[in-house]
Amino acid sequence: MEERRQTIEYKFLRQNTHHPVPKKRFTFAIYLGLFHLAFMVLMGFFTKYNLGDGVSAGKNGSNLYAMFMDVHSMMFIGFGFLMTFLKRYGYGAVGLNFIIAAYVLEWSILIRGWLEAGIHGESDFTLDVKSLLVADFCAAAVLISFGAVIGKASLSQLIIMATFEVVIQGVNELIGLHYLKAYDVGESIYVHIFGAYFGLAVSKVLQGTKEIESTKESSHYHSDLFAMIGTIFLFLYWPSFNSAVAVDEGQTRAIVNTFLAITASCISTFIISLLVGKGRLNMVHIQNATLAGGVAVGAVADMQIEPFGAMIIGTVAGILSTLGFQFLTPRLNESFVHDTCGVNNLHGMPGLLSGIASAIVAATATRDKYNGNRLYTFYPSRVPSLNSTEFANLSLDATDFANGGLGRTAVMQGGYQLAAIGVTLAMAIIGGIITGYIMKLPIIEQIEDIEEMFDDEPNWLTPEDYSLKLTE
Amino acid sequence: MEERRQTIEYKFLRQNTHHPVPKKRFTFAIYLGLFHLAFMVLMGFFTKYNLGDGVSAGKNGSNLYAMFMDVHSMMFIGFGFLMTFLKRYGYGAVGLNFIIAAYVLEWSILIRGWLEAGIHGESDFTLDVKSLLVADFCAAAVLISFGAVIGKASLSQLIIMATFEVVIQGVNELIGLHYLKAYDVGESIYVHIFGAYFGLAVSKVLQGTKEIESTKESSHYHSDLFAMIGTIFLFLYWPSFNSAVAVDEGQTRAIVNTFLAITASCISTFIISLLVGKGRLNMVHIQNATLAGGVAVGAVADMQIEPFGAMIIGTVAGILSTLGFQFLTPRLNESFVHDTCGVNNLHGMPGLLSGIASAIVAATATRDKYNGNRLYTFYPSRVPSLNSTEFANLSLDATDFANGGLGRTAVMQGGYQLAAIGVTLAMAIIGGIITGYIMKLPIIEQIEDIEEMFDDEPNWLTPEDYSLKLTE
Amino acid sequence: MEERRQTIEYKFLRQNTHHPVPKKRFTFAIYLGLFHLAFMVLMGFFTKYNLGDGVSAGKNGSNLYAMFMDVHSMMFIGFGFLMTFLKRYGYGAVGLNFIIAAYVLEWSILIRGWLEAGIHGESDFTLDVKSLLVADFCAAAVLISFGAVIGKASLSQLIIMATFEVVIQGVNELIGLHYLKAYDVGESIYVHIFGAYFGLAVSKVLQGTKEIESTKESSHYHSDLFAMIGTIFLFLYWPSFNSAVAVDEGQTRAIVNTFLAITASCISTFIISLLVGKGRLNMVHIQNATLAGGVAVGAVADMQIEPFGAMIIGTVAGILSTLGFQFLTPRLNESFVHDTCGVNNLHGMPGLLSGIASAIVAATATRDKYNGNRLYTFYPSRVPSLNSTEFANLSLDATDFANGGLGRTAVMQGGYQLAAIGVTLAMAIIGGIITGYIMKLPIIEQIEDIEEMFDDEPNWLTPEDYSLKLTE
Repeated sequence: MEERRQTIEYKFLRQNTHHPVPKKRFTFAIYLGLFHLAFMVLMGFFTKYNLGDGVSAGKNGSNLYAMFMDVHSMMFIGFGFLMTFLKRYGYGAVGLNFIIAAYVLEWSILIRGWLEAGIHGESDFTLDVKSLLVADFCAAAVLISFGAVIGKASLSQLIIMATFEVVIQGVNELIGLHYLKAYDVGESIYVHIFGAYFGLAVSKVLQGTKEIESTKESSHYHSDLFAMIGTIFLFLYWPSFNSAVAVDEGQTRAIVNTFLAITASCISTFIISLLVGKGRLNMVHIQNATLAGGVAVGAVADMQIEPFGAMIIGTVAGILSTLGFQFLTPRLNESFVHDTCGVNNLHGMPGLLSGIASAIVAATATRDKYNGNRLYTFYPSRVPSLNSTEFANLSLDATDFANGGLGRTAVMQGGYQLAAIGVTLAMAIIGGIITGYIMKLPIIEQIEDIEEMFDDEPNWLTPEDYSLKLTE
Repeated sequence: MEERRQTIEYKFLRQNTHHPVPKKRFTFAIYLGLFHLAFMVLMGFFTKYNLGDGVSAGKNGSNLYAMFMDVHSMMFIGFGFLMTFLKRYGYGAVGLNFIIAAYVLEWSILIRGWLEAGIHGESDFTLDVKSLLVADFCAAAVLISFGAVIGKASLSQLIIMATFEVVIQGVNELIGLHYLKAYDVGESIYVHIFGAYFGLAVSKVLQGTKEIESTKESSHYHSDLFAMIGTIFLFLYWPSFNSAVAVDEGQTRAIVNTFLAITASCISTFIISLLVGKGRLNMVHIQNATLAGGVAVGAVADMQIEPFGAMIIGTVAGILSTLGFQFLTPRLNESFVHDTCGVNNLHGMPGLLSGIASAIVAATATRDKYNGNRLYTFYPSRVPSLNSTEFANLSLDATDFANGGLGRTAVMQGGYQLAAIGVTLAMAIIGGIITGYIMKLPIIEQIEDIEEMFDDEPNWLTPEDYSLKLTE
Repeated sequence: MEERRQTIEYKFLRQNTHHPVPKKRFTFAIYLGLFHLAFMVLMGFFTKYNLGDGVSAGKNGSNLYAMFMDVHSMMFIGFGFLMTFLKRYGYGAVGLNFIIAAYVLEWSILIRGWLEAGIHGESDFTLDVKSLLVADFCAAAVLISFGAVIGKASLSQLIIMATFEVVIQGVNELIGLHYLKAYDVGESIYVHIFGAYFGLAVSKVLQGTKEIESTKESSHYHSDLFAMIGTIFLFLYWPSFNSAVAVDEGQTRAIVNTFLAITASCISTFIISLLVGKGRLNMVHIQNATLAGGVAVGAVADMQIEPFGAMIIGTVAGILSTLGFQFLTPRLNESFVHDTCGVNNLHGMPGLLSGIASAIVAATATRDKYNGNRLYTFYPSRVPSLNSTEFANLSLDATDFANGGLGRTAVMQGGYQLAAIGVTLAMAIIGGIITGYIMKLPIIEQIEDIEEMFDDEPNWLTPEDYSLKLTE
């Protein structure tokens, strides 16, 4: 009978003596539980349902819930599987992505709710489909940062990172949207730039470049196919990501532009990958750089950039991203900061490209291009101030523009877009460095042994075939 | 030429002499064909299109079709891939799930149509998107039961099980909803409790516990990753499952509550898995218990339980489910009833938790909590009877409440929720035992050899690398 | 330091001396870049946004965007993963599918835009969600053709094929819909028949049957599971494919009919697979023939065929397709034309079945069946001519039928449906043969060595475990 039980347990548990479990991991589980408990209590004090909004069909007949579901899929299937390319970190990719995203969803609902309530001078806030969507956007930033440090940070460290990043990202986006009034419908500045450079700053502080010695940071044939599940879902649903919060005709533009830009980056990636790969395609490029157009068009997706404009942005992004993966990352990994998934290439540089594009587009936006007063739907800060003669002459809709605007010129708006990039970079890098040092506090589990990097064995019970996979 | 053909056939067929095919399997194929033929004839006699309903935008602008598609994905991708964790039963998981679900969709459209028509004293019924959605809910019950017996029942037995379960499940849900008027928007009682205990009853009758000796009931590294595809899709679309048939503000509540509950169960599962796994995460928990919050919030998802209430339910469900997988299932498997996927932990116990929650919530529902008369939208049986003075005093909407109600008190409604659980448990267990004995009739193919369990080879033509996988 | 860099590069690159890269492949990359550049320029000259249409909620409350997303998923996840069944061509399946689909989306937006504009005597055209959906339909045709030649054509050849096929397919569909007025809501004639026979014609010209000697054209256990991801997504979203452009009550019918037909083909496939497999199921059948019902109901999906009619069509399609995979394809592969994915069985024959069904349904369509004047919504060419007495007697809606119709009888309409099949077959086969010969031009990279067929190594940088997979 005793022997029989052993057989049964053997099915699920493998003895794993190589990697002893540090005590700190248990302490961490307790902390995570306390955080979660605190979230529940806070949710009890501060939130109610928003019952008036329903499932929020937009004004133009779109379905917010369906778009939210697409974005939700990108977080869990898209990011989760994209990172399974690592041959021995598949559980970690999809599993740790799962817990980090779930944790961030809870925490960011609170943070975003408080920030929003704070602006309006209220003390509590309501939840509806849009709250959940915003939480998913916030999760995107953290999961991008996760991409920079995957395989090199302990679960405890990742949760610490998420805890701080949610707050800093939320504050940064508030500054950008509310104070600078820099628009970014697809979150290229506030999520992609922020997430990438926050993650890289953390990575720099955590390990620097020693992980370069690991032999486990590579893929297997089937792990690359799992990763393609992530790639394809990100590719498919990116138009929803960039258009979910767009309004009116901006939503159609955001869908069409994102579709064209990401398709263009797919094509330019294949071309460049073939050229730099000496005639052979490289899965790392196909899994990642193909998506750069979605990032790069983000900050201008709902603007009047014209279909060919979207294609140009996507094409440039695909080229830039592929070249980054091929030439930049190997060198940076070795000499300055290790970037496991190459988030600088997929999110960082294309995000910067998008931000710069948004400044140019804003600086050249005219009433002509936007069919007259529709300009102000997309650039409300360009509405003249209430008592100006310009305001009176425009005969604007009394309901929407009752309080007038800031009277910014096109060039001023372009400048504010650039300012938002600057602030975001500063917040991300400084925030990431501080967070990184907190993650290195000795009370938190560290991964210092190279053998423990990019390996599921230290964190997971593994099946019988796992040790064989390594020697394959 | 003859040799060449052999080469060609070799590509598709492997000689497989270990597992001879029993004659009964052919007989079964004929039966399945006859069933299907009968379904077509019956469909011809009894059904028409419901052309008035269109693609059914709900009153609050939601899109029934999109939510139906989410639920549909849960059945085929979610359940199908969730069960691929078995290292040698991947074809069976996704393939048998496919045929069982398809068979159930056809059969349940008829059964549900007849039951519905019967209530209204009609002889035929119409089909629209909602009919297909209801068929998917019914499929969920059968696929849950499949999870209890996967790897241990022949395809013939599974079809027999599906045939009976659809009828019994349909009758049970009719009793619960129509006669007891016990509400369950997310089908936690009528689908999850029912499916789990029906399946366990069948499993008990079929084999008892001898399958415990099999060495094949475990996972490989990549089979666990395939299973995570199922997990993530179930996680993503659960809000659609619980809210698809909810109405008005109840739909927003159902979305928000399910999102919060399932996220909470994800977090609590990771914590408990780490603790009970001596510091290591267990894929069995992550694949399953993370979803328990979706089940546990089901029966109260559209109710005024408040966001923190949803989180508490989800947290408790995740803990309960993980502990079940860790401590209860290994013991039950050995001593009482074998439960391949642990459906007791993911569907049974969280379903019971949900049912009990629904009784408590019903027993404490007040007009205050539901903004006055809106209470009766969610608890119509609490509408006072037509000629009572209470009814007159409430000045209810004449169209919706023209016939008055049953005049139940809150506590009475809570009691009826408990009654529905009791009836469901009885119907599931007795129905499952009877169905199990029918499945054991000697005219039906049985799986008696332990070597044939949890193995695709007896049922499928397998590729050349299949035999190697075992020894890996 | 130099040694360290070698280690790093080793992670991504494997020396691969077996398959030298031909120079033509680089030339091709340049060409592809030029094509893409040309598309951008042309897009700049000819397209604007359609800003009036929004995200296009249909009249009956459906959501075009959500359905478009479903169809979009079918192209990239569905087709991409369906073809990963090949044990050594997984990168090629999902990767080349990715670039071909992306390329076709760009090119077909232009071609379809020009054709549409040409009909209306306009010089430019607008883009909205429907344009993207139509581009996806066009991609389906090319991806079906890809299925016939996968593993045997170089990437250059595939792009050449796509370039010509998009034009010929577009012209053929224009002839069919605009001049012959033969209706085909689910694109069974214009996409499935066309794509299958175009691809087979190309395959015939390219290699004939010599690839039959390859030992690599078979599956592994896990590659079959990857393929099931494709199968299931195609199965799930087929109702969206067939109903996305349907109108009014036709959309409900298209959803219900496709759901029933594809479910029926799933069931009949399992039965026949079991019988012809001597009691064992064959993954090739399950991955493919299960979907034949979706194709076969396509051309009549929105018509009044009744639920049982849809089931009959699906059942027959499943049987036909399974028998084709079992008996026809092995013989054709050997003696006439090699069809890697068996597109004749999944798209060709079921497409023909659908076309014939559409002729019969059209020839028997009466005003009675369609509730009087609603007939003309689905068969507008049957509207009597403007000055006829029949036209006056019908008292048709002045807005929709202001110009009268062609006054076709039911039988005439049936004849035109058959004519469309004939024209499509002719265009596909002749177009495919010509395209095939163009693909064989010596300036384009050819795959002539059998060792290079069905193998990712010639086209991709492969990971360390790749060579081991072969010998497994």
